[in-house]
Amino acid sequence: MQAIQTQKDDEIDLLKAFQTVRAHTMELCEPLETEDYIPQPTVDVSPPKWNIAHTTWFFEEMILKKFAPAYQEFNSQFGFLFNSYYNSIGTRTRRDNRGDLSRPTVAEVFAYRRFVDEKMCELLAGNLSEELRDLIVLGLNHEQQHQELFLTDFKYTLSVNPLYPVYKKDFALVERGEELSGGTIEITGGIHEIGFEGEGFCFDNELSRHRVYLQDFTIAKNLVTNAEYLEFIEDGGYTDFRFWHSEGFDWVNQNEIAAPLYWQKIGGEQFNFTLDGLRKLKLDAPVCHVSFYEASAFAEWKKMRLPTEFEWEAAADKFDWGLRWEWTNSAYLPYPHFSKAAGAIGEYNGKFMVNQMVLRGASVATPPNHSRRTYRNFFHAPLRWQFTGIRLAK
Amino acid sequence: MQAIQTQKDDEIDLLKAFQTVRAHTMELCEPLETEDYIPQPTVDVSPPKWNIAHTTWFFEEMILKKFAPAYQEFNSQFGFLFNSYYNSIGTRTRRDNRGDLSRPTVAEVFAYRRFVDEKMCELLAGNLSEELRDLIVLGLNHEQQHQELFLTDFKYTLSVNPLYPVYKKDFALVERGEELSGGTIEITGGIHEIGFEGEGFCFDNELSRHRVYLQDFTIAKNLVTNAEYLEFIEDGGYTDFRFWHSEGFDWVNQNEIAAPLYWQKIGGEQFNFTLDGLRKLKLDAPVCHVSFYEASAFAEWKKMRLPTEFEWEAAADKFDWGLRWEWTNSAYLPYPHFSKAAGAIGEYNGKFMVNQMVLRGASVATPPNHSRRTYRNFFHAPLRWQFTGIRLAK
Amino acid sequence: MQAIQTQKDDEIDLLKAFQTVRAHTMELCEPLETEDYIPQPTVDVSPPKWNIAHTTWFFEEMILKKFAPAYQEFNSQFGFLFNSYYNSIGTRTRRDNRGDLSRPTVAEVFAYRRFVDEKMCELLAGNLSEELRDLIVLGLNHEQQHQELFLTDFKYTLSVNPLYPVYKKDFALVERGEELSGGTIEITGGIHEIGFEGEGFCFDNELSRHRVYLQDFTIAKNLVTNAEYLEFIEDGGYTDFRFWHSEGFDWVNQNEIAAPLYWQKIGGEQFNFTLDGLRKLKLDAPVCHVSFYEASAFAEWKKMRLPTEFEWEAAADKFDWGLRWEWTNSAYLPYPHFSKAAGAIGEYNGKFMVNQMVLRGASVATPPNHSRRTYRNFFHAPLRWQFTGIRLAK
Amino acid sequence: MQAIQTQKDDEIDLLKAFQTVRAHTMELCEPLETEDYIPQPTVDVSPPKWNIAHTTWFFEEMILKKFAPAYQEFNSQFGFLFNSYYNSIGTRTRRDNRGDLSRPTVAEVFAYRRFVDEKMCELLAGNLSEELRDLIVLGLNHEQQHQELFLTDFKYTLSVNPLYPVYKKDFALVERGEELSGGTIEITGGIHEIGFEGEGFCFDNELSRHRVYLQDFTIAKNLVTNAEYLEFIEDGGYTDFRFWHSEGFDWVNQNEIAAPLYWQKIGGEQFNFTLDGLRKLKLDAPVCHVSFYEASAFAEWKKMRLPTEFEWEAAADKFDWGLRWEWTNSAYLPYPHFSKAAGAIGEYNGKFMVNQMVLRGASVATPPNHSRRTYRNFFHAPLRWQFTGIRLAK
Repeated sequence: MQAIQTQKDDEIDLLKAFQTVRAHTMELCEPLETEDYIPQPTVDVSPPKWNIAHTTWFFEEMILKKFAPAYQEFNSQFGFLFNSYYNSIGTRTRRDNRGDLSRPTVAEVFAYRRFVDEKMCELLAGNLSEELRDLIVLGLNHEQQHQELFLTDFKYTLSVNPLYPVYKKDFALVERGEELSGGTIEITGGIHEIGFEGEGFCFDNELSRHRVYLQDFTIAKNLVTNAEYLEFIEDGGYTDFRFWHSEGFDWVNQNEIAAPLYWQKIGGEQFNFTLDGLRKLKLDAPVCHVSFYEASAFAEWKKMRLPTEFEWEAAADKFDWGLRWEWTNSAYLPYPHFSKAAGAIGEYNGKFMVNQMVLRGASVATPPNHSRRTYRNFFHAPLRWQFTGIRLAK
Repeated sequence: MQAIQTQKDDEIDLLKAFQTVRAHTMELCEPLETEDYIPQPTVDVSPPKWNIAHTTWFFEEMILKKFAPAYQEFNSQFGFLFNSYYNSIGTRTRRDNRGDLSRPTVAEVFAYRRFVDEKMCELLAGNLSEELRDLIVLGLNHEQQHQELFLTDFKYTLSVNPLYPVYKKDFALVERGEELSGGTIEITGGIHEIGFEGEGFCFDNELSRHRVYLQDFTIAKNLVTNAEYLEFIEDGGYTDFRFWHSEGFDWVNQNEIAAPLYWQKIGGEQFNFTLDGLRKLKLDAPVCHVSFYEASAFAEWKKMRLPTEFEWEAAADKFDWGLRWEWTNSAYLPYPHFSKAAGAIGEYNGKFMVNQMVLRGASVATPPNHSRRTYRNFFHAPLRWQFTGIRLAK
Repeated sequence: MQAIQTQKDDEIDLLKAFQTVRAHTMELCEPLETEDYIPQPTVDVSPPKWNIAHTTWFFEEMILKKFAPAYQEFNSQFGFLFNSYYNSIGTRTRRDNRGDLSRPTVAEVFAYRRFVDEKMCELLAGNLSEELRDLIVLGLNHEQQHQELFLTDFKYTLSVNPLYPVYKKDFALVERGEELSGGTIEITGGIHEIGFEGEGFCFDNELSRHRVYLQDFTIAKNLVTNAEYLEFIEDGGYTDFRFWHSEGFDWVNQNEIAAPLYWQKIGGEQFNFTLDGLRKLKLDAPVCHVSFYEASAFAEWKKMRLPTEFEWEAAADKFDWGLRWEWTNSAYLPYPHFSKAAGAIGEYNGKFMVNQMVLRGASVATPPNHSRRTYRNFFHAPLRWQFTGIRLAK
Repeated sequence: MQAIQTQKDDEIDLLKAFQTVRAHTMELCEPLETEDYIPQPTVDVSPPKWNIAHTTWFFEEMILKKFAPAYQEFNSQFGFLFNSYYNSIGTRTRRDNRGDLSRPTVAEVFAYRRFVDEKMCELLAGNLSEELRDLIVLGLNHEQQHQELFLTDFKYTLSVNPLYPVYKKDFALVERGEELSGGTIEITGGIHEIGFEGEGFCFDNELSRHRVYLQDFTIAKNLVTNAEYLEFIEDGGYTDFRFWHSEGFDWVNQNEIAAPLYWQKIGGEQFNFTLDGLRKLKLDAPVCHVSFYEASAFAEWKKMRLPTEFEWEAAADKFDWGLRWEWTNSAYLPYPHFSKAAGAIGEYNGKFMVNQMVLRGASVATPPNHSRRTYRNFFHAPLRWQFTGIRLAK
C-alpha cells in the first residue's frame, strides 16, 4: 500500500510487535464481566465483543485468507458478523445491530482470537513480502485504534447504567490532570511543511507531505481546564447564541446540552463519570468530552479561536500534548496528492473526508506507541464520547 | 383487589403454587448462555435478565415491602431498574434502555431471585390476609404472563442473529400442528353471558360478567393453516389494497411485509425460524406470528371475517383452542362496571384500553394452568412476535 | 349501493338538493382571500382549494364519467390531483403535499366547479336510475362532510398565523354556548335496537340495524363546560397519570399538552381562538377541541366515564345535541352484517375500522340536514381540530 | 461594518442602485399568479411572498428603524413574520412554517414594499454616513442573493406540481449551454494571494486577503456536460460505492437518487424540468442541480478531483464561469483574521462556517453585478436546488 511506510531495518521485531499489541487488548478486557461484552447503547459505540472480534477479523480477512496458503477460516459466518464498513468485502451486520447478538459467546470469540493469533504467528515466522509486512503493520495500528475505542465505548456503556459501575479501580490515570505551566507560544508565519515524513508507519491521510503558508499566530501551552469551562457555563455560555455556530446552537437546544458529557450535578455538587466511577469534578484537569461545537463556542467566548490543524502541527514541538484529542478548526479533507489504495484498504480513510472535523494530538486512552505529530483523527462535530479537549489560538 | 377472586378453600396450596411457578421460570432459563440474558433488539422485547428480575421485583415491591414487617430490600436501586410501567411507584428505566445494562450481572439477579424466594416462603408459612393472598395470586399470574413473554421475546432475539441459534433441541412442541377435524360450528343468536364467573383467579378486565346480545353466527373449528395462508400470498394478498384496512396497507408497504414474521425463503424453499432453529415450513400447522392487519386481510380475502371476542367466548366450548392466540375483531375496551383497583395494581390493565385489539385463547407458549375461556389478551394491531393465529367466522 | 337508502317519493327534489348543497359550499368561500385557499399547515388539514376541487371531482369521477354519455373531463390531470384516498381509481397526490400546489389557480378550480355543476344539472334533468340517484345523494352527503371539514381545516390554518385572522365577523355562532338545564337521564337496560332504519339516506357504517344488550346507565343532559374543564386543569389533571390511558399520558408529555387546542393564556387571561378571531374564553360554553384522551381523562377525574356509542344512541332522544361531536368510549368497528359496496364507493368507510374512536351527535360546523341519531363519526384518539366535546355517563 | 468596503467616489449612484435592484425583484415577480406566492414545499425553499417581504424587512429593520429619525414601522408584527435567522433581533416564524401563512395578503406585502421604498428614497436623498452607506450596500447585496433564491426556490415549487407549470416562456436562458472550447489549464504552484482586495463591495467571508501555498495543478476549461454525466450514470456510477463518500452513498440509497434533480425519464426519453417547463435534456449543456456528493463521485469516476476554492480562485481568470455554481472540495471555514461584525450583521456569514462546502463562480440565476472571483457561496453537501455544476481538476 503506497501510503504506508514501514521501517525496513527492524524486520525481526514484527512478531514481537504483533504479540505486544494483541496482548494489550487482552489486558484491557481483564476487568470485564461476561455481560459487559454485549450492550451497544448507541450506534457510535461498539460492544467489547465486537471490538475484539473485529480486530481479529481484520487479520483473518486481510492477511490470512490471502497470504496463508492453507488457511481455513475459523467460522464462515464471522466474516459477515464482524466486518465494520468495508463494502469491498461484502454485506455486513447493520452497524446499529451489533448489541443484539448474544452469540457467538464471548468464549467462542476468545477462541477465534487465539486461533487467528496462532496462525498469524506461524505466518510471521516465515519470509514476509513488503506488501504483507505493510498490511500487518496496518492491522496492528488498526487494533490500536480499537484499543482506544474499547475504552471510550465501554466508558459510554457504563455511563448509561444507573449503577455507575467502575471499570477499574486504579484507572484514574485516564482522567488525570496536567502540570499547568501556562502561557502561550508565538509562531512566525511563512511556509511550513505539513504531513508525515521519514521512516515508520503512517496512515494514508497523513500524506503527501506538502507546503502550507501560515500567518503569524499564537497558541496556548495548556489545554483549557474544567475550572475555565465552568466559568463559561456560569457566564451563560450555553444560552447565548452569539458564541455558537448556527447548527451548534440548534444541537444545544434540541439535546438540552448544558455541560460536557458525563458531568452530573448531585446535590449542588459537580460530579464527573470516569472509568473509576462517579467522582467529584477535578477543577485543574483539562476539560474533556466536549463537542466541536462546544470547543468552538468556548473559544469565541474567550475571544480566541481554535487552531487549524496546520498551525497545530507547526507548533506541536513546543507544547505538551497527549492528554486530550484537540479539536481544530480544520475540516477533514485530503492532502495534496492523497490517493486511496486499491481494494478494501482504500476504504480506510478517504471515504470519510466530508463533514468531519480534524482532531490532533492523542488522549490518555491512546495506547502506547500510537501517536505522532502528524496523526489526523476526525469526528463529527457533535460527538463527545472520545476524550476530546480544547487548546486555544489567536 | 376487588376484581380478583381466589379460591377460598385451597389455602394450603399457595406455598406450593408459589414454588411451582417460580421453578418453572428457572426451567425456562436452563438453555441460556450468560450472554443471552442481555440483548433487547426491539423496544417490545425485554431481555431475559429483565424478565426474571422484574417478576421478582413484583413480589418485593408489592408484597414484601408492605407485608413482611422487617423486610430489607436486596438492593435499593433495583426498584428503579426493574419497574416496568407502574407510575405509582416512581421513575423507572426507560423501556427501550433495558438492553443497555450489563450490570447487575446475571449471577446477581439470580441471587436477588433466591433472596426474595426465601423471604416469600417465610411469609407464606404464616397467616395470610385475604388481601395478601390475592396479591400473591396476582404475582403468580403476573409471573406466568412473563413466562410466555420470556419465550416470545427470546425467540425474537435469536431470530435477528444471522447464526439462527437454537433455544432448545427438543422444543419443537411450541411450533406443533393440530389434528384438523375441519368444519364449522353454528351458534344461535340471543343473549349470552360474557365474562368471568365462579371460583379461582381472573384479571380485572374479565369482569363484570354481563349480558351481550349476539346475532346468529358460524365459526370455524380449526385455525387457518400455513397452507391456506400460502394460497393468500400466492393470490397476491399482500399487494391488493381491497383486503386491507387503510393503515394496514400502509404498514405492509412501509415495512415491506410479504409473509408472516419468521418466514424466510432460502433457495426457493419456505423456511420458518422456530425455537428449535430454522426449519422447513410445516404446511398443516396453524399459521403463526401474523398481525391483526394480516389476520383481517386474510379473512376479507376468504370472504369471511374474524369473530368478535364475544362470539369467540360464546362458542369456545365447541372447538379446541390453545395453540395460537386468536385475533378477534374486538377492540380492547372495559366491560360494564369495570373498575380499576386503587394504587399500583390499578395500572395493571385499565390504562391500556385504547387502540389495541383483543386476542382470545392461549398459545403453545402459555404456561400450564394459565388459560381460561374468559381470558382477554391484547396487543397493538401491527405486532407479530406473539404466537398469534387466525380463526374465521361469518 | 346496498347500504344507502334514498327516499323514493321526493325525486323531484334531487336537482334542488344538488343546487342547495353546492351553493352552501360557495357561501362558505365568500370571506376568503385568494391566498387563503393554498396552505396546508398539517397533514390532517386540507387547503380550501383542495376541498372545493375534491368534492367536485367526486361528481365528475363517480357520476359524470360513468353516467353522462358524452362527458369530456374538464382537465385530465385533475383526477390525479384531487383524488383523496380511493385506491380503486388510481394514484393520487400525496396527502401531505396538497399545500404545495399553487396551480391550478383558484379561478380555474371555480371554473371546474361551474363546469361540473352545469353537466350535473343537465344529468339531473333527465331520468335517473336508482343506482344513479343513490350515488348523487352520496355525493351530496360527501360534500356536506367536506363543508364541515372546510370550516375545521380553515380554522386550524388561521390559528397557526401569528396575526390571528378572522374568518367571518358575524360567525361567533359556531362557538356558541348552550342553555344549561343540567341534570341526568336514567336509561333502563335491556335489548335496544341500534343503527339506521327507515327512509332517507344513511352511510353504510350505520347498517345493519341490530339488537344490543345494554346495562342500566345514567347520562348527562349537558355537555361539559369550559368552566368545569378549567377545574380539571387547575386540579392538576394534565400531570396526574392516574386519569390517563398510558398512551394518552405519553401524548400529553411528548406534545406538552396542557389545555384544549386553541386555548391561549395572554397576560394571565384565558383566550380562545375562534373563527371570529382571538376571544376571551366563554366559561359557560361547552368545552371544545379536546382529544379522546382528554375527554377520557376528564371523565376519570370526575369519577364518571364516557358513554358507549350504543348508550348514546339509545338515550339521544332525551337530551339536546349538535353543538359538539361527542367522544364515546366505543371503537369504530363494523356492525353485524356490515358489508362494503363493490368498487371505489366500498372504500368510503370500511377500511378505516381500526384504531379510531366513534363520535356521536354533530357540531355547530355540521351543515344543515346532515345529522341524525344514528350517524357514526370517527377520528383517531389524539386528534383535536374537529369541534369535539364531552358528555359524561355512569 | 469592517468587512465590507464600498466605493468612495460614486456616492451619487446609491439611490439609483437602490432603485435598480428593487425594480429587478419586481420584474422577477411579473409572471406569478397570486397563489404562487404561498407554498413552501420543503424547508430549504421560501415562498416568493416571504422572499419579497424579507428583503424589505431587512431595510426596515437594519436601516430605517435606526437611521430614519421619525420612521414608524408599517406593521408591528412584520418584524416577527419576516425575520430569517437573526437571533439578535428576536423571535421569528419557524423556518418550516413560512408556507402556512396566507396572511398578510400578497397585496399587503407589495404595499409594505412600496412604503419602505418610499422611506428609503427619502433617506437616500439626504447625507449618508459611511456606516449607513455600507449597510445600504449590504442590503442591496442581500436582496440580490434573494433574487437568485427567488428563482431557485420557485423552480423547486413548480417542479413538485404534477402540472409542471411554466415560469416564463422566454426564460430558457437560465438553462442555456455554453460554447465548449475544451481543454485544460496548467497552474504553477507557489504562493498565491486569496481573498478580496480593492474598491467595491465584498462580504466579510471574503476577507482578509491572505497568502496560500498551492501545489501545481490542472483545471478544466469547461464544466462537465449532461452527456458526460449520462456516461457516469450508464456506467453504474450511482451503484458503485467506490466512487462515493461514505455518507454520500448512504444519501444515494436512502433517497433513491439515480440522476440529478429535475431529471425525469418519460417513455424512455430523458427530460429535464426547467423554468420554461418540462423539456428534453440538452446533452451539451453543463450538468446542473447536482449535490456535492454527486460532483465528488463523478470526479472520482473520472479519476480526477474537484478543485479547492483556492485553486479555483487562482485560475479563474483563465476560464469562463457563471453558468453554474461550482462545487469545490473546500469546506466553508473562516479566512485568517476573519472577524464578525457586532450585532445582527455579524450573524450574516460566520455562524454557518461548519459542515458546508464552498461553491465558487455564479449561476445563470445570479443577478447582474452580483458576481466576482472572490465570492464564496456555501451549501450543505446533499443540497441540489441551486444551479450547481462540476468543474474537474487534477
